[in-house]
Amino acid sequence: MNSAIEHQLHHRTIRAFTAQEIPATTIDTLIDVARHTATSEFLQAFSVISVTDPQLKKAIAAISKQTYVGDNGHLFIFVADQHRNAQIGHEMGQDENKVGGTNKFLAAASDAILALQNTVVAAESMGLGTVVLGSILNDAGQLIDLLHLPQLTFPILGLAIGYPDQEPQYKPRLPKKFMHFENSYQLSTPLIPQLKAYDAEVHEYYDLREANRRVDTFTNQVNRSLLNVPEKRHELLQLLHQQGFLLE
Amino acid sequence: MNSAIEHQLHHRTIRAFTAQEIPATTIDTLIDVARHTATSEFLQAFSVISVTDPQLKKAIAAISKQTYVGDNGHLFIFVADQHRNAQIGHEMGQDENKVGGTNKFLAAASDAILALQNTVVAAESMGLGTVVLGSILNDAGQLIDLLHLPQLTFPILGLAIGYPDQEPQYKPRLPKKFMHFENSYQLSTPLIPQLKAYDAEVHEYYDLREANRRVDTFTNQVNRSLLNVPEKRHELLQLLHQQGFLLE
Repeated sequence: MNSAIEHQLHHRTIRAFTAQEIPATTIDTLIDVARHTATSEFLQAFSVISVTDPQLKKAIAAISKQTYVGDNGHLFIFVADQHRNAQIGHEMGQDENKVGGTNKFLAAASDAILALQNTVVAAESMGLGTVVLGSILNDAGQLIDLLHLPQLTFPILGLAIGYPDQEPQYKPRLPKKFMHFENSYQLSTPLIPQLKAYDAEVHEYYDLREANRRVDTFTNQVNRSLLNVPEKRHELLQLLHQQGFLLE
Repeated sequence: MNSAIEHQLHHRTIRAFTAQEIPATTIDTLIDVARHTATSEFLQAFSVISVTDPQLKKAIAAISKQTYVGDNGHLFIFVADQHRNAQIGHEMGQDENKVGGTNKFLAAASDAILALQNTVVAAESMGLGTVVLGSILNDAGQLIDLLHLPQLTFPILGLAIGYPDQEPQYKPRLPKKFMHFENSYQLSTPLIPQLKAYDAEVHEYYDLREANRRVDTFTNQVNRSLLNVPEKRHELLQLLHQQGFLLE
């Protein structure tokens, strides 16, 4: 096994960073890696915003409901972006376009998310820690305003990176037989009895993690998450429409 | 610069693979890497289907309108998957859940796409070539049938990997100033005059690539793509609804 893969297999989310600043050249290299990610039809339909203004960072931490987002580390927001390409078309005399369709939203979202994971791997290969922030969508409307995101853009995920200031345990992953299939989707049910050993493993992980944290199983976490949707996440579809996406 | 990042900066899509088979242990390692990717709320809302049946592979190549998809190489379909988690909830006595919302679709799609890119980097670190296949969505309805994808799943991207049988040029990427911003989205317009040098670079790339291929610029490609949506891609929103996604 090569060292790149060893790094990937030892991925864990890092939520606490030291005060050591990341050199500008490192950020530059990470953006270069993002740019060199595979992209749908070569349209490069994503952008990245570096959040360096401390006030803005605090505001995004509040949206995320994760105070650590406002602390040390460099914060990126990855943006699904069909605005730039629509602008090019407009300048070339095209008044109509199909960028508002679901097809183009999925392409832009994919471009942004692929580029983010490429950035994660690059950062971790340099010894940096990373945390992917789905939590920026807890109030996507406010984030759109804060970052001045125009029509046909959408903030899809955040990414904070920095020098690790913690050593968390490795979180046990769902066994392969529940998520890798051959030729067709095949999940034998009921699942709960089959997940008993994995539940025990996850329980032990939480037990070891921190004394004052919940001790939970995987199935309990899943069960709780199914009904628990943060208030403003109900607005996501409306916001996507407002940004000009998913219109057909 | 470390070797992992060098690999990433030298990414290029490989569409022709030799007949050399990829060992099962390699596929296993790649799935392990996919499993260890960051996942939203630890819900691991994705699955991977390995397409090993030659007939099925040909059918997917026809959907993709890319014959090479049916040739050498290992084909994965990455699936946004809330079905498994909804099934767990159901077995725990939950009759209702919110997995049909936009929020949960974005989470599942993100999980699947992040895992795919992690797999790409791992494969390339081992000297394998990769091609990400957005083209599976040219007829997502048929693909859903072929793979027997249940409610609350959606095939988000394909990935073919194999031992490279070609040495393509590196495709020049959009300069940073057009896609990396600080604290807010800032694109100065008009874009076309600013993109002149980049257009020339892309033109040269195509010119060198193959004598019998189009010689094109970036802005021309963008312009053409804005109106050109393959027929069945207009059905994507309806299909997502049919699979139980984006319902609110």
